[in-house]
Order: sequence, then C-alpha cells, then structure tokens
Amino acid sequence: MQTLTVQLGERSYPILIGAGLIRSRELLTQHLPHLRQRDLLLVTNTVVGPLYAQALRQSLPAQRIVEVVIPDGEQHKTLDNAAHLFDVLIANRFGRDALVLALGGGVVGDLAGFVAACYQRGVDLVQVPTTLLAQVDSSVGGKTAVNHPGGKNLIGAFHQPQAVIADTAVLTSLPQRELAAGLAEVIKYGLMRDAAFFDWIEQHIDALRAREPQALSHAIRRSCEIKAEVVSHDEREQGERALLNLGHTFGHAIEAATGYREWLHGEAVGTGLLIAADLSQRLGQLSPAAVARVRALLERAGLPVRPPALGAQRVLECMRIDKKVQAGRVRLVLLQGIGRALLSADYPDGLLQQTLVAHFG
Amino acid sequence: MQTLTVQLGERSYPILIGAGLIRSRELLTQHLPHLRQRDLLLVTNTVVGPLYAQALRQSLPAQRIVEVVIPDGEQHKTLDNAAHLFDVLIANRFGRDALVLALGGGVVGDLAGFVAACYQRGVDLVQVPTTLLAQVDSSVGGKTAVNHPGGKNLIGAFHQPQAVIADTAVLTSLPQRELAAGLAEVIKYGLMRDAAFFDWIEQHIDALRAREPQALSHAIRRSCEIKAEVVSHDEREQGERALLNLGHTFGHAIEAATGYREWLHGEAVGTGLLIAADLSQRLGQLSPAAVARVRALLERAGLPVRPPALGAQRVLECMRIDKKVQAGRVRLVLLQGIGRALLSADYPDGLLQQTLVAHFG
Repeated sequence: MQTLTVQLGERSYPILIGAGLIRSRELLTQHLPHLRQRDLLLVTNTVVGPLYAQALRQSLPAQRIVEVVIPDGEQHKTLDNAAHLFDVLIANRFGRDALVLALGGGVVGDLAGFVAACYQRGVDLVQVPTTLLAQVDSSVGGKTAVNHPGGKNLIGAFHQPQAVIADTAVLTSLPQRELAAGLAEVIKYGLMRDAAFFDWIEQHIDALRAREPQALSHAIRRSCEIKAEVVSHDEREQGERALLNLGHTFGHAIEAATGYREWLHGEAVGTGLLIAADLSQRLGQLSPAAVARVRALLERAGLPVRPPALGAQRVLECMRIDKKVQAGRVRLVLLQGIGRALLSADYPDGLLQQTLVAHFG
Repeated sequence: MQTLTVQLGERSYPILIGAGLIRSRELLTQHLPHLRQRDLLLVTNTVVGPLYAQALRQSLPAQRIVEVVIPDGEQHKTLDNAAHLFDVLIANRFGRDALVLALGGGVVGDLAGFVAACYQRGVDLVQVPTTLLAQVDSSVGGKTAVNHPGGKNLIGAFHQPQAVIADTAVLTSLPQRELAAGLAEVIKYGLMRDAAFFDWIEQHIDALRAREPQALSHAIRRSCEIKAEVVSHDEREQGERALLNLGHTFGHAIEAATGYREWLHGEAVGTGLLIAADLSQRLGQLSPAAVARVRALLERAGLPVRPPALGAQRVLECMRIDKKVQAGRVRLVLLQGIGRALLSADYPDGLLQQTLVAHFG
C-alpha cells in the first residue's frame, strides 16, 4: 500500500492506494481510526453496490451502517437525490458526528460529498472511488456538486474528505470504455504539468489498457500527487487549480450538448484535450508534432478524438454557461508545450471560432 | 455610521451600522466597491420587499439586478425554495462572479446565504438584515441553512458574507413582537459574555422598546462586537462558538414541538434563556437572584417566559434531534454567572428532567 497526503493544514488527509484495501479491516482500522464507533451512511449505486458493498461493510468497524443505493448514471446526480439522502440521514437521526462514505465513481462521490458538505453544515466524508477516473481525479480535492438541467456541477460545495481509499483491485471489474475514460484524466496530468509523466504514459499505455497492476498503481499515484500538489496551493480555485480544467471546458460543452448521455465525462475530456492542443497550435504556442503526440496517445488509449458535429455556435453557447466564465469571457486552459498548461482569456475570438468549426463543423 | 470588522483573515468583512444606509448610494458605493458592475440577485420577501426593495435598488450601482420575492415565514426556508433560486440564477446565466443580496430577516438571509454558498460552489453574498434579530445575530457569522421537516437548519453551509449592512431606520416598521424577539438575542449576548452589557440592557430596556435610535444603535453594535469576536476565534463552531447557542437548544425544541408557527425564534430563545438559567441554578452554579434578574428582564422586554405545556418527554425528544448532540448526549450551554456561559455535557439527567417538568409540565 502507498500513502500520499493532500496538504491542507488542519484539513490534510491521506490517499491510500493499493490492491485489496476495501477487504482489509486491519488496514482500514489502522489508517482510518475515525471510522470506528460512528454512525455511517454508505452511499453507492446499483452497479458497484452489488459487487463491493458487502465486502466493504464487513471491513468497517463502524457501529451502525445505513446503506443507500442510487441508480447508476450522471443523470442521477441531482438535487432531488441529495434531498433523498438528507431525508435518510434525518430519518435515522444521524448527528453532526456522522460519517458519509461514498463507494462508487464520480457521480456517487460528488453527490455523497455534497450531502456531507451540507448536512448539519458539514459532516465527515470518506471517498472510496471505484473507477479509474474517480481514483485519479474526482475523489481528490474536495469538489462536490450536483447537476442542474441548465448545466453540470452548478450546485455544490468545497468539502475535503477525511480520507480517500483507492483500491486498485476493484478496477478489474471496470468496463474497458470506463478505463479509457479514466486514462483521459491521467493523460491530462502529464499534459498540464509533467512532460516526463506524459512520456511514461506513452511508453506504458498498452500496459495500462491491459490493467497491469504496477502500471495502474504508478499512474494513479503520480496523478494523485499532481492533483494533491495543485489543490494544496489553491484549494478554492482562485488561480492555479483552474489548470486542472485542461480539456474540460470543451469537454463539458460536448457533454451538455449531448445531454450527458452519449459521452462519458472522461471521453469528452479526452477530446477536449485535443481541441485545447489544436487551439494552442493555432495560437503559435504548441508545435504540430506535440498535437500529433496528443492525438496518437488518445487513440492508443481507446478514446474518441472526433466530437459529434454539433456546430461551432452550439458549442460556444454551451461554453458560455460553464463556470469558467468571468466578466462575460470564457477563460481557457491552453498549452505552451507538453507539460506546460496556462490559463488564458487572451486569445483572438476568430481563432477559437476556427478551431471549433474544425472540430464541430 | 459605525463600522465593525469580523476578523477572519482573507474572509474578513465589515458590518456597517447606521440610519438610512440603504438609501445612500454614496455610502454603499464607497464602502462596498464590490457591488459595482455585478450581476446581482436580490432576494427579499413579501413583507419587506414592498417597503424597501425599490429604495435599495436605486442605491445599488450593480449593472443588472434580478429580484426574487419569497413568501414571509419560517416555513418557506426550504430546500425547494433554494432550488427555485438556483433555477433563477441559472436561467439568467449568472456566473461565478455574481452576487447574492439578502434583504430581509433571518429566513431570507439564511436561505439566500445557503444559495450563495452552493451556487457554482460559492458566490459572493451581502446581507441587508431588516429585523433586529437578523441585525444582531443571523446576518453575522456565516451560518446559512434551510429547514427540513425533521428539524431546523439541518441542511446548510458556512459561508461568510462580503458585508453586512444594518440600517437601523428599517426597524421603525418592525412589529413590536419582532422587536422583542430581537431583544432576546441582545439579552443573550449580555448573559453569555458581558455582565456590564447586561446591566446596560436592564437600564435601557424601555428606551430599546421605544426604539430610541441611540439605544438601538448601541445594542446592535455591542451585540455584533461580541458575535464578531466569538466567530473570529471559532468560525466553524469547534468550541467557543457553541456558547452563542445559549437558550437555543431549549428554544429549538419549543419551535419544533409547535411546528415553527406559534413562536418566533427570538421568543423561543428568550424562554430558553430562562430555562438554561433555571437549570444552572438547580446545578448550584447560578444564584436565585440572577435567575430572577433574567426573568424580570425578559418580561420587561415583552417576551413570554412560560413555554406551552408540551411535556418534558416531548421536549427531550426534540432536543435529541438538535445539532448539538454528540455521541448521543445533548450538550447544553449553561451559566456560571451573568456574563459567564459554559458548554457542558456533564449534568445529572435527573436535574434536566426536573427542570423540563417545571417548565413544560
């Protein structure tokens, strides 16, 4: 088992990474003493719950466990489902010392995290992410939210977990498409911050797709290290943290325009990375060779590189409702090289338009 | 005009106290530069809106103001109304740089504050409290929440405002009963923390009930000073801040048991102060003379001192669902003297039972 710490002063917390963690009462009790003697709300979904909830429950030293199983899918990350979880907490008279445990992917983690953030103005939270994407991204850093018909993650809170437990063994049951979606975020970390890690991913992409434990473990660890470092510097996204949104503004627009159904979040982000690279090249900041490397790596990861023909105008409208708009202008994360992302609102609208037409028609 | 500062590092903010503030574009623009050039959501209610919204809007330098008027009353501080405000923000495409302005009493402030806390994971908030209770208590300190059928303020967030504007002129339109409810919180500050202020309130209670501007202004200022000091030390209620709940655990039980309809929050708190004093006396910590002073002052303030005959058992059940429960035990704020409150979970259950029977039958 490996342990990382997200450094946030008194809100610091560990990320545990290893195979079989959720089946080890000994490890959980040793590393997470706050799990003991607690009222615990276990939130999971209809896909993950049947596979892992029972095993996890047997490893938990908590006194009382109430389990809520929500349907699988992004369309269930709603304020209505949050309200349902509040109802369950209150019906069971859970107090301010209760703990919410999220067992699932990003949807479960974001929803359960939002509920933990707001129940009695904040109760403890432990994330047990079960997808690669959640292990390397959404479970770390304290962003929680639910969606609104008008846009993704528009209602939410910053609420850091007490711990993140990334059990790499659960990734064996992950569909190939979801594995690829998680790899998109892994590639993002290399692209934004660490050229050597990008090189490493290029060299190990086949091992990652084959789920070789050591390769996965390294990819998760390095991704979490980068995210933890960025979040430690800028918890509330006043600056540097926005770089983690590389590929996301384009990706969110794809998701929104397709109703959050056809594209997985990670798939949309992957394509968004390529569009961000392409725009950076049109701005003269990135070489054509670098763009080609991004495209090739996404393809080898099994990710789509062509978005649907939504039309540039439609995509622009979706981008404008995204949270990154400031003073009416969309701020974009662009690239100055592999491993070097920067935030910019200073780009010619014509070049953005050109880029969108090239990708979305 | 007087200005206080709530010291919270980079989240510090001013409390402006004075007559006629909401009618002065000059003062608002000068002291609240962040009001300029903003998309602004003005939240008010059906009682306060018609009286003051127009005047306030004319003083605001904001670019675009969208106004939402909610019905008056505690029963409207719901997650459903929060959802409605999210809908309005999103329908108007308000960005992360939007500002929410709450014009009203505690219900409006808590609801609008919760929405500001969660919209896009937090946008700016300005509180313009229009009741004495909101001016001395609920608008200051960053507690926001909505109610749940199972209990008050069970869903919420800590979210500090950018500023609090306490215009004492608006108190002239306040019903006498609501003025008295606000005085209950003023009395609480003296009782918990400042014996000299308690003396001053005894001497000026008639002037306060007659709404003499100087007396009101002093009471608001000193109350806000005490609250600001406590909040600065303990923003998230890990310790000292819990003392501000003096009278509230008993008060919340009265409100809950009567369906939040018959008793105003301040009235319930006032009676709760007397019950806390009585229990403290039974514990041998407070003199009978001090209890008599508390009772006399509440009566002179026009506050009820006899709760409804709910029965001790019922009240105890209501107290158990309150947020102050820790490890199954209700923590109470008790008195060791006038001006000296302390938090305790260490009291004989028999004495609590006796006290409840004495007051609730």
